[in-house]
Amino acid sequence: MKELVINLLKQRGVKLRSIAEIAYDLQSPYNPGLTLEDCIISVEQVFEKREVQHTILTGLALDKMAEEDNLEEPLATIIKTDEPLYGIDESLAMTIANIYGTIGVTSFGYLDKKKTGIIEELDSSEGRVDTFLDDIVAGIASAASARLAHQLKKEEQAEIS
Amino acid sequence: MKELVINLLKQRGVKLRSIAEIAYDLQSPYNPGLTLEDCIISVEQVFEKREVQHTILTGLALDKMAEEDNLEEPLATIIKTDEPLYGIDESLAMTIANIYGTIGVTSFGYLDKKKTGIIEELDSSEGRVDTFLDDIVAGIASAASARLAHQLKKEEQAEIS
Amino acid sequence: MKELVINLLKQRGVKLRSIAEIAYDLQSPYNPGLTLEDCIISVEQVFEKREVQHTILTGLALDKMAEEDNLEEPLATIIKTDEPLYGIDESLAMTIANIYGTIGVTSFGYLDKKKTGIIEELDSSEGRVDTFLDDIVAGIASAASARLAHQLKKEEQAEIS
Amino acid sequence: MKELVINLLKQRGVKLRSIAEIAYDLQSPYNPGLTLEDCIISVEQVFEKREVQHTILTGLALDKMAEEDNLEEPLATIIKTDEPLYGIDESLAMTIANIYGTIGVTSFGYLDKKKTGIIEELDSSEGRVDTFLDDIVAGIASAASARLAHQLKKEEQAEIS
Repeated sequence: MKELVINLLKQRGVKLRSIAEIAYDLQSPYNPGLTLEDCIISVEQVFEKREVQHTILTGLALDKMAEEDNLEEPLATIIKTDEPLYGIDESLAMTIANIYGTIGVTSFGYLDKKKTGIIEELDSSEGRVDTFLDDIVAGIASAASARLAHQLKKEEQAEIS
Repeated sequence: MKELVINLLKQRGVKLRSIAEIAYDLQSPYNPGLTLEDCIISVEQVFEKREVQHTILTGLALDKMAEEDNLEEPLATIIKTDEPLYGIDESLAMTIANIYGTIGVTSFGYLDKKKTGIIEELDSSEGRVDTFLDDIVAGIASAASARLAHQLKKEEQAEIS
Repeated sequence: MKELVINLLKQRGVKLRSIAEIAYDLQSPYNPGLTLEDCIISVEQVFEKREVQHTILTGLALDKMAEEDNLEEPLATIIKTDEPLYGIDESLAMTIANIYGTIGVTSFGYLDKKKTGIIEELDSSEGRVDTFLDDIVAGIASAASARLAHQLKKEEQAEIS
Repeated sequence: MKELVINLLKQRGVKLRSIAEIAYDLQSPYNPGLTLEDCIISVEQVFEKREVQHTILTGLALDKMAEEDNLEEPLATIIKTDEPLYGIDESLAMTIANIYGTIGVTSFGYLDKKKTGIIEELDSSEGRVDTFLDDIVAGIASAASARLAHQLKKEEQAEIS
C-alpha cells in the first residue's frame, strides 16, 4: 500500500522529494548536519504508517470526488472553494502530523500559515481541487521533521552517556 | 444547514430522538433529575455547531460513495468492510465528541466498545455502508452528554454561591 | 475563578491586553474592521471556560514548583530548561487552543515557531521558569483569534441571507 | 529514564504486570492466541517512549504535591477531590493512549468509564491522591493494547501475501 499512496501523490503532482524539502526547511535550523537525503529517508518512514496511508487515500478521494463533481451540495462547494471554516482537511492532516508527538502538530500549524514550497503551489492551483492534498503534504512534512528531531535527541544523549 | 444535516441522518435511519436516548443513558447516572427532553435539547445544540455539520456531511458522503461503488480500491473495500485498523471514522467523530472537552472523548470511547442503542443496529446493518454513520452518532451523543455534564456543574455552583 | 486566573497571569507579568494584541495580529489580516477592543472581549470570553482555567492553574503551578526548586529530578531540570522534546506544555496549551476548533490549533503552531509579542519576552526571561506560561499565552491568543474567525463568518452569512 | 518511571509507578503501588493484565483484558477478545507475556512486552515498549516518560513524571509530581499539601488553592482541592470536570488528568493520559492511534483513545475512554483491575483500586484509594495515576495507568494499558492490535494485523497480512 505504501507504493500505492506514493504513486497517488505523484499523480497529483507531489513528489516525495518536494515533501522532503519542506521537512528540511523545518528541521535544518536545529540540526546543522542534516542533509536532504536524511529527510527523504524520514518521509519514506512516515509513509510506512498505516494511519498515514489511510488518511492519504481518504483525503485524495474527497478531492477527486469534488473535482469530478460527484459530491452533493453543500459539501461540493465547501470542498471546491476550500471554505475557510471547513476544518476537516486540517483535522485529518493533523492525525499524520501528530504521529511523532506535539512537535509535529506545531510544525503543521506553522506550515498551514506560511504555506512554503510545494504547499503554496497546491494551495493556489487553478481548475483543480487540492483542498485535502495541501494539508496532507504539510502533515507528512511535519511528521518527517518531528521524527528527525526525536532522532537527533537520541544521538545527543548517546554521546553524553 | 442544521436542518439539512438532521434530515440527512433521518434518511439514513437515525432520528434525533435515538441519539438523545444514548446521551440519556450516558448522563442519567450522574444526573438524577435528567429527562429525555433535556437530552433532545442538548443534541439540538450540538447540531448548531458548524464543525459538527461539516463532519456529518463529509462522513455520510464517504459512506454513500462506498455504498454506490464510487470509490476506488483499496479504499472502497476498507470502508465497506469497516476495516478494524481504519481509524479515520473514529478520528472524525472524535472531533465532534471533543467539542465540550475531554468528558466527551471518554464517553465516545465507551460507546465505541459497548455500541448501545441505535449504534448497535447501525454497526450490524446488512447491505448498507454505515462505517462513518455509527461513529458520528456516538460522537454527537457523547458531545450532548458532555454538554449536560458541564451545565449540571454550573447549576450546582450557582446554588452554592 | 475567572478573576483568580487573570490575576495569576498578571502576577507573572502577563496582562490580558498583551494576549489580546497577539490575537489581533493573528486575526486582523482576515478581518479589516477588527479592533483591539474586540480582541480584549474575545480573550475575556476564553477565560470564562473552565477547561482554560484548569489548564492555567495546573501549568502555572508546575512553573512555580520548578522555580522554587520543589520538583524532583529529572523533572526539575526538564522544566527549568524547557527541554525541547518535553511536549507536555504544548499538549496542555493545545487543549486551550482547540476550544474553538482546528483554526486555533494551527494558529498555536504558528505562534510556537514565531514567538511574537509577549511570548518572545517570556520565552527568554532569565532567572524565572515560564515553560508552561509562554505556551498558555499562545493557547489563549489562538483560541481568542479562532473565536473571532467563527464570529466574522456568522456575520457574513447573516448579511447574505 | 525508563527504569526510573517504572520504579516511580511501583512506589505508588502499580506493577508493570497489573498494567499488562488490563491490556490483556482489552485485547484478548480479538486475539485468541494472546498471552500475558505478550502484554508485558508490549507495556515495556510503551515505557520506551519519551512522551510517556514525561507524562508519568509530570502527572505523578502533581499527585504528590497535592498529597503533601504543597499546592495552592483552588488547585489543591480540585486535584485532591478529583473534581469531575477537571479534565487535565484525562488530557495528559490521552497523549499516551494516542501514541498508537485512535484505537488507543477509544480503549482509554472505555477504561475511564469501566475502571477495571488496578484502576478501580487506585480510583477509590483513601488518604492518597491518585488523580493522575489512575488515568496514566489506563493510558499505558490502552497504548499497549493498541500496539498489539496493529501487530496482529501485520502478521495477518504477512500470512496472506
